[in-house]
Amino acid sequence: MSTGPIVAAGADLFATAVESQGVPVERVDWRPPMEGTSADLATVLTDPLRADANRRAVEAVLGVQAVLVDVAPASEVLGLSKGEFLHAGPPIGWERTSGPLRGALMGAAALEGLVDDPEDAAALFEAGSVTWEPCHHRSAVGPMAGVVSPSMWMFVIEDAASGRRTYCSLNEGLGKVLRYGAYAPDVLDRLHWMAAVLGPVLRDAVRTTGPVDVTAILTQMLQMGDEAHNRNRAGTLMLLRDLSPAMVSGPHPSSDVAEALRFIGGNDHFFLNLAMPACKLALDAGRDVEGSTMVVAMARNGTDFGIQVSGTGDEWFTGPAQLADGLFLGSYGPDDANPDIGDSAITETAGIGGFAMATAPAIVRFVGGTVPDALATTRRMHEITLAENPRWSIPVLDFAGAPTGIDVTAVCRTGILPQINTGMAGRVAGVGQVGAGLVNPPAEIFPKALAALAARTRSRA
Amino acid sequence: MSTGPIVAAGADLFATAVESQGVPVERVDWRPPMEGTSADLATVLTDPLRADANRRAVEAVLGVQAVLVDVAPASEVLGLSKGEFLHAGPPIGWERTSGPLRGALMGAAALEGLVDDPEDAAALFEAGSVTWEPCHHRSAVGPMAGVVSPSMWMFVIEDAASGRRTYCSLNEGLGKVLRYGAYAPDVLDRLHWMAAVLGPVLRDAVRTTGPVDVTAILTQMLQMGDEAHNRNRAGTLMLLRDLSPAMVSGPHPSSDVAEALRFIGGNDHFFLNLAMPACKLALDAGRDVEGSTMVVAMARNGTDFGIQVSGTGDEWFTGPAQLADGLFLGSYGPDDANPDIGDSAITETAGIGGFAMATAPAIVRFVGGTVPDALATTRRMHEITLAENPRWSIPVLDFAGAPTGIDVTAVCRTGILPQINTGMAGRVAGVGQVGAGLVNPPAEIFPKALAALAARTRSRA
Repeated sequence: MSTGPIVAAGADLFATAVESQGVPVERVDWRPPMEGTSADLATVLTDPLRADANRRAVEAVLGVQAVLVDVAPASEVLGLSKGEFLHAGPPIGWERTSGPLRGALMGAAALEGLVDDPEDAAALFEAGSVTWEPCHHRSAVGPMAGVVSPSMWMFVIEDAASGRRTYCSLNEGLGKVLRYGAYAPDVLDRLHWMAAVLGPVLRDAVRTTGPVDVTAILTQMLQMGDEAHNRNRAGTLMLLRDLSPAMVSGPHPSSDVAEALRFIGGNDHFFLNLAMPACKLALDAGRDVEGSTMVVAMARNGTDFGIQVSGTGDEWFTGPAQLADGLFLGSYGPDDANPDIGDSAITETAGIGGFAMATAPAIVRFVGGTVPDALATTRRMHEITLAENPRWSIPVLDFAGAPTGIDVTAVCRTGILPQINTGMAGRVAGVGQVGAGLVNPPAEIFPKALAALAARTRSRA
Repeated sequence: MSTGPIVAAGADLFATAVESQGVPVERVDWRPPMEGTSADLATVLTDPLRADANRRAVEAVLGVQAVLVDVAPASEVLGLSKGEFLHAGPPIGWERTSGPLRGALMGAAALEGLVDDPEDAAALFEAGSVTWEPCHHRSAVGPMAGVVSPSMWMFVIEDAASGRRTYCSLNEGLGKVLRYGAYAPDVLDRLHWMAAVLGPVLRDAVRTTGPVDVTAILTQMLQMGDEAHNRNRAGTLMLLRDLSPAMVSGPHPSSDVAEALRFIGGNDHFFLNLAMPACKLALDAGRDVEGSTMVVAMARNGTDFGIQVSGTGDEWFTGPAQLADGLFLGSYGPDDANPDIGDSAITETAGIGGFAMATAPAIVRFVGGTVPDALATTRRMHEITLAENPRWSIPVLDFAGAPTGIDVTAVCRTGILPQINTGMAGRVAGVGQVGAGLVNPPAEIFPKALAALAARTRSRA
């Protein structure tokens, strides 16, 4: 890594450092801590492991360079067998699944030939004759419903330094698509084409081109109005730029190549499915550091919002997924929307998406809010994060690095919740996308995580 | 046109309107008018034609939608014959030409086979056995030296409503290139390849794809960190997106198509040569409105900086081109730089480039200056322009339209000069690019234009 990370910048650092020593500090912009967290905060903030653990965790995250090395079916690279599915968010039983997750699982069952009609698939899931588990448990991430089935092709992202890999499916576009819970015949037709044509065309182009530096493309995107969650337009175009020469020179018929170019070029969100696994690859490097209070995953299944924290291993801390506040497509309104869903909040966990809205002010026309709000949001996220990412700088904020590494103690101490921007799925299975907006995690999951961190601190004392 | 232009927004409008009636107005941020302009200002500001003429001129500019309709050799579309050359800026004799213009003309003479060695070409120009005239006199524009010769391929831009067309050559990239005055064998080899391969590949792709909406791409670019003078990265990528499917499906060998994709994808400035003729197409719609004080062209030949004004026809008002203040490549420094050169200030004349730097803060790493300066520059340009362009809005300034239509009276009244950002050519013929920076026109050309406007006003009275 050529550029060293700037760890823990921000005016609050000194105050926090002093407070860690148990000395009360007066803040100009003081906010009360979250209710009932004072004792756990006192315990965790005085944990002698904490400062160094957080430094190591966030430096590990900032040090990862993610490259796209392959595109291949989930059956090959994830070992998924017929009847095995992955989904977004923390684990969930069928009876509590949201409409869009249910719709996507039913569509995927039909895609895999388990049923002819998606409507007949519910019985398989009710009977437990098929299995489903979180993408995050298999080094993967999935936007919205995040459903992965064996025949779907996956981007394979690698950290060359460690050989670690993460995975994400190919983006279908917006509107009536499986990841928003739609499963009409045209949705499945598109997925069949993606497996038969798009996947192989991309595989051969990536293998010919050699690794594509996703982290570096993200650097450029943040200078080009993308925040890499709900704006991925520049990233998508740079991927096209990097792969199109090899696509043209490859073994596929020019009509297939032209169709693939048109499909990618017509979907400004295509790069999201590379941004997400790049963020997961980075954050996974910060996992399992004893004493670290840094969040390593935020994910939603449409019912529950869950976080995982570096110092507490694979445990999920969950609460009810919230409804987003935003803009609706066509005649849809708030009553049509499902609560927050998807693994895409991995982007905010890594410091981009909602955390980097200052660099993408045009996004307010897609997710709502105002330009001053977008600028203020990024500044506010610095108050709950451990570092600025020197690779991902935000020109309009004088090239400040993206606020990275959410600190559970900072969230509990200030009450400032992470800001996520997100697509909104219809709450009824089969509907698809109904809008996009702004949303926060349920507040209670941070005190839950803090309690677990405090318990570990005490058990070590 | 679906969106009506917002003409003459800005806090200064009311003050100016009142002042036009001869009523003295107190301004909070008053600046003295340029020296010696008071009498001419009084005459022109009370010209009964002025307000309506400026409204019509700027509305005509804002109403133009520029589309790319063809790519073809200059010999075909401009009727250039062997021994005829075009160049940037106002007219100039050989004895006063700058090094980069001289170098580019010598290289172009060799490209056309008039001489074997570019060094031998100077004699042709000294003897007057060849001819050269401004691009602007032939509905064309050229970046930097702006030299066009018969075999060079041109983008053909059209205003569908009127059928008017403008032209610009294909961009060669940065560094040692003809437009910066370089003429080494590899420079001419690249130009030969562009004529033999790139031009025909693009021609067939454009003809197959159908008109490409350059004005709409500019709208998107301004939301993607480009200001369309010295940042054209997103624009270049969108052009690739729009043309690559037809390039793949066309009659050319896949190796040529792949090379063309790589060449365009490797040159972030490729789209500049579409932005420039789109701006000229718009501004030409505002020419020749009697009484209008709006600038319709700013152009430099490396020796003289010239402007043309709507109400004064084809007359050039010129003064010495200035040295840019900026960043230098490698070991080059200020002593190596030629004064300001190129027709590319047509972008600023149309409200983008230096006028839209607020939307492209990352550009300060290329042309120098600071992010707060970039934001302040766009705000300042509103003080000397007639309108905001509703098609070209700047998200970070709460979607304010780009400041468009430089008003000679406003420049003379405030002393605020148009802000241009620009590449810097080496002052010695053959060197190429040495840097990029910020520059202004010579102040005296605005009082000169004002005097001509005042003379016409008086002759009508």
